[in-house]
Amino acid sequence: MDPTSIADGVLAGDRRAVARAISLVEDGSADLPPLSEAIYPRTGRAHTVGLTGAPGVGKSSLAGQLVAGARARGRTVAVLAIDPTSPFTGGALLGDRLRMQAHATDPGVFIRSMATRGHLGGMALAAPEAIRILDASGKDLIIVETVGVGQAEVEVATAADTTLVVVQPGWGDAVQASKAGILEIADLFVVNKADRDGADDAVRDLRNMLRMGPRGEWEPPIVRTSTVTGDGAEELWEAIERHHEYGTRSGELERRRRLRIVAEVQAMVAERLGRRAAALLAAREEGLAADLAERRIDPYRAAAILLAEVAAPAADKETSDA
Amino acid sequence: MDPTSIADGVLAGDRRAVARAISLVEDGSADLPPLSEAIYPRTGRAHTVGLTGAPGVGKSSLAGQLVAGARARGRTVAVLAIDPTSPFTGGALLGDRLRMQAHATDPGVFIRSMATRGHLGGMALAAPEAIRILDASGKDLIIVETVGVGQAEVEVATAADTTLVVVQPGWGDAVQASKAGILEIADLFVVNKADRDGADDAVRDLRNMLRMGPRGEWEPPIVRTSTVTGDGAEELWEAIERHHEYGTRSGELERRRRLRIVAEVQAMVAERLGRRAAALLAAREEGLAADLAERRIDPYRAAAILLAEVAAPAADKETSDA
Repeated sequence: MDPTSIADGVLAGDRRAVARAISLVEDGSADLPPLSEAIYPRTGRAHTVGLTGAPGVGKSSLAGQLVAGARARGRTVAVLAIDPTSPFTGGALLGDRLRMQAHATDPGVFIRSMATRGHLGGMALAAPEAIRILDASGKDLIIVETVGVGQAEVEVATAADTTLVVVQPGWGDAVQASKAGILEIADLFVVNKADRDGADDAVRDLRNMLRMGPRGEWEPPIVRTSTVTGDGAEELWEAIERHHEYGTRSGELERRRRLRIVAEVQAMVAERLGRRAAALLAAREEGLAADLAERRIDPYRAAAILLAEVAAPAADKETSDA
Repeated sequence: MDPTSIADGVLAGDRRAVARAISLVEDGSADLPPLSEAIYPRTGRAHTVGLTGAPGVGKSSLAGQLVAGARARGRTVAVLAIDPTSPFTGGALLGDRLRMQAHATDPGVFIRSMATRGHLGGMALAAPEAIRILDASGKDLIIVETVGVGQAEVEVATAADTTLVVVQPGWGDAVQASKAGILEIADLFVVNKADRDGADDAVRDLRNMLRMGPRGEWEPPIVRTSTVTGDGAEELWEAIERHHEYGTRSGELERRRRLRIVAEVQAMVAERLGRRAAALLAAREEGLAADLAERRIDPYRAAAILLAEVAAPAADKETSDA
């Protein structure tokens, strides 16, 4: 299948074409630029929701519940589960688990887990490309779930229109330890497993954190959910919708999306230039790399030498900063 | 303090100079290039050990035990605890916890937690710089502990001479789910909390995994430890030493270090060029960024346009790949 046929299929909402396109993203295929060009004008319609939180808080079950909620409201939905590049997560199973559930035969639901080892830009560059494919395929809602809890994973989860931070009862210590980070990224807090002891404490901790942080125009709501009892499903849905309406009305949604696409292009440029630098280094295996290994020149000087070769002369004035 | 004085202090093993130098790394200071140039020739002597594993497996306690083991053998030691940039870890406390322990007044021990928000290259670029500072300061052993379990954190832990993957009993599922990743990064497995039920199962799972994976010259040993009873401390120490001897003898250590420093320089170059691309994008706010936001051009084309401006013409042939 050539990129034009895949793009046509994606725009027509064909599942196999969508699956194929996402595989191209996983592989970092050379067919991505023409595919991207064909579908990009047809993106921006979907609402994307990022789910993040420590392992075991129930992100997948919550994603399943959101899928059911979307379908009950007649909306189409895609779930993109970003597979672990980290070995500590066991997340490869998540997509499968979801796929086996109730929605397997529903044409309004598309569930896919994506590994990003083949994509040279890692998950930070692969995820937004996959999201645009799902968007262009006509899904109304796109849920992005990351499995790890590191720097890269949080970046992916925040690259959504609405970022949900999921916690569970008993999570108080971590909250205390990391106020700043969480206040920054959450549009919405979910206290999941709210049927268990300690849910009140978790809500109170979060509320206190929010009180101490800077006050924005949007105040992140705290929603209690239990995917066991089903409690809170309605409230969560409403809170997500409310955030989307706020974003649309205030212009915040457009502003964020604009920042995101600019940051993505920067990262693409950096990644490619990094590969050029790698090629240059490799070509001089006996030169610069040996000088580095034998400590005749230090990394900063080596970087400056490579910069002078890779970069256009006009931009050379920045080489001395850290 | 100017960078030359700091470098002199670091090379003399002065604690305050070392602390100051690591703060420069945290901040991504403009003083780093001269500091790096001064200390780099005096690096490469220390043995670095990376500790990684899911939260709660006891990495910090294990680090504490390794510190005690090193001191008992008359070796000096540094612990570098990489602080979370992820909000889910609570790791900011680790360094403090360690610092309060027995070794606080021992001049042969240096313990430091490092946040990397100020460093533009993130923890992947900040960690090796901090490690070189500790190395140049004369510490024999450097233990690097990461707190998160994402992609970036695993990268840091593997940027050591010997990478320890720490697990605990009951971890079987995750092991099953992610064989490949773990076989790749571990030089040594530690089943910590081996006083608890399920330690035998964890050892067996790991052994089965190893049997299924590719066989290298070095077969990662599996060591049981309990930081509560102190069991296994001796065995762990011996296994680490054995891996270091193997690396030295086989040339694998030099080969890895060489790959590491080359990869680091590539990443430095990429990071700087990315900033140039950002500056260019910012300068044309009404042009390229608007075209992107309004979907008149797609991200790949925007990246190609920027590349042509940032990069030297000779290297332009690569712009069409993914």
